[in-house]
Amino acid sequence: MRKISRRAFIGGSIGVAAGPLFAAAPLFGARRTGPRRRAGSPAPSPAPARHFELGLASYTFREFDLDPMLTMAGRLGLGRIALKDVHLPLDSPEAAVRATAAKVKAAGLVLYGCGVVYLTSEAEVDRAFAYARAGGMEVIIGVPGHELLGRVERRVRETGIKLAVHNHGPGDLLYPTPRAILDRVRGLDPRVGICLDVGHCQRSGIDPSEAAAECGARLLDVHLKDVTAPTKDGTAVEAGRGVIDLARFLRTLAAMEYRGTAAFEYEKDGKDPLPGLAESVGYVRGLLAAEDKGKNA
Amino acid sequence: MRKISRRAFIGGSIGVAAGPLFAAAPLFGARRTGPRRRAGSPAPSPAPARHFELGLASYTFREFDLDPMLTMAGRLGLGRIALKDVHLPLDSPEAAVRATAAKVKAAGLVLYGCGVVYLTSEAEVDRAFAYARAGGMEVIIGVPGHELLGRVERRVRETGIKLAVHNHGPGDLLYPTPRAILDRVRGLDPRVGICLDVGHCQRSGIDPSEAAAECGARLLDVHLKDVTAPTKDGTAVEAGRGVIDLARFLRTLAAMEYRGTAAFEYEKDGKDPLPGLAESVGYVRGLLAAEDKGKNA
Repeated sequence: MRKISRRAFIGGSIGVAAGPLFAAAPLFGARRTGPRRRAGSPAPSPAPARHFELGLASYTFREFDLDPMLTMAGRLGLGRIALKDVHLPLDSPEAAVRATAAKVKAAGLVLYGCGVVYLTSEAEVDRAFAYARAGGMEVIIGVPGHELLGRVERRVRETGIKLAVHNHGPGDLLYPTPRAILDRVRGLDPRVGICLDVGHCQRSGIDPSEAAAECGARLLDVHLKDVTAPTKDGTAVEAGRGVIDLARFLRTLAAMEYRGTAAFEYEKDGKDPLPGLAESVGYVRGLLAAEDKGKNA
Repeated sequence: MRKISRRAFIGGSIGVAAGPLFAAAPLFGARRTGPRRRAGSPAPSPAPARHFELGLASYTFREFDLDPMLTMAGRLGLGRIALKDVHLPLDSPEAAVRATAAKVKAAGLVLYGCGVVYLTSEAEVDRAFAYARAGGMEVIIGVPGHELLGRVERRVRETGIKLAVHNHGPGDLLYPTPRAILDRVRGLDPRVGICLDVGHCQRSGIDPSEAAAECGARLLDVHLKDVTAPTKDGTAVEAGRGVIDLARFLRTLAAMEYRGTAAFEYEKDGKDPLPGLAESVGYVRGLLAAEDKGKNA
């Protein structure tokens, strides 16, 4: 079932994690705290702390308005969110962006980013950075035309806002794979990097753990999901029911000291995504907790 | 957070599992197959196979009729179900029981039991066994009056249907703890045993892993859940968000070669339980998968 043809990456700056490497991580909105242990439990074996947090790509709720989307996100206890334009149009006046950002914050969420934003002109690049700045966002998950990467880099340097290019898998003419992105951004400011979509990565026949390791410090954001097959025919499915080795991927993020967000983007059941998203969130929390328990047993 | 006062049980027939003891288990309806491994992965270290399966206590959907309940159960891929009387009244004519059993089967589920059934008279005992037999059920999860245990044992011997007595935690006058059940059933036919509700057990201040180990072969069914506190004030919560060490509990079930069902009984969000149930199911699958991945890494 999991016999996946894995393209062997070369040149990654860190090996892919194969063993249990987790320490405890904040799961319910706590921010980047150190490892915790159960009182009275023996000291865990040496392992890197997890520095990443779980979040949500609001594209999951693309069929819903902002308010019900925030309510559903709140039920899951996810602390960080990146908004899709359906929840905050890219041409919104600055005041509207600020108002939505305030509403997100009032719902207990950190508005850490936006996307996926398609950038097909210099004006769209400029607009996206102004939008992100108005919303207090840290990162734009985007798809810039190759010829716009220079302008993107300038805006990144001006604003301090990162740009994470998103891989869209087989059929994507611009950035089908993380490596295709790496090849384009290698010489740019390090804040121009990659949003690794593990589903589209796996659909390209590439194990996401190997891709993450190759991305190294260029890994700026993650879209967490699962897919039914490691080919272009793979479709979205609840995490744990598909072919992606998410346990290994999460270990890899910890081992490489990834400090961004791992955002769930659940694309199945567009009109009723909450149950499948909830199952996915539970599955990932179970993977993380099992590692922690193994250490503390 | 997890500093729980654990009552030290004595006399259990098997120790409580402390280390990684899982082998792979069927998660999506496959029945008691042996361990599976990823193609090409090294042989896992010796570990007992899991022989139990995940299921559903339909009490979770007590606010819903049978048909929508079966639809929601189907989305989660749970293969086994125990019906609460709201979905199949205990005074149903035999033909109605058979019709509902057929409907459950047609939905892809094994109707393995019923409950919780309160048994306050000899007539109710007899009715429950006739009902379970008509539905082809393996086990009645019940609360028999102490004075009815003799009659229960006779019906168990006649029908081959097991009776699992359910612990209801602090305030339950009949069977507050698994030990209170054990003390009552010890001399009876081994098919009179215990449905260990891990939530009510933990609310009694008893770690469910220690209780399961003490139950030994008397453990006939399990209600899986999580609670907010290890006291009578603990309330239902999504699995993984509460205080129960479910990873250890699942390892204990595997180590003691438990061969029954671990049925989710999600009591929170009665009018909209699917998201929290889904998160709970995902969490448990994540715990199980992480153990398997650890072996195969």
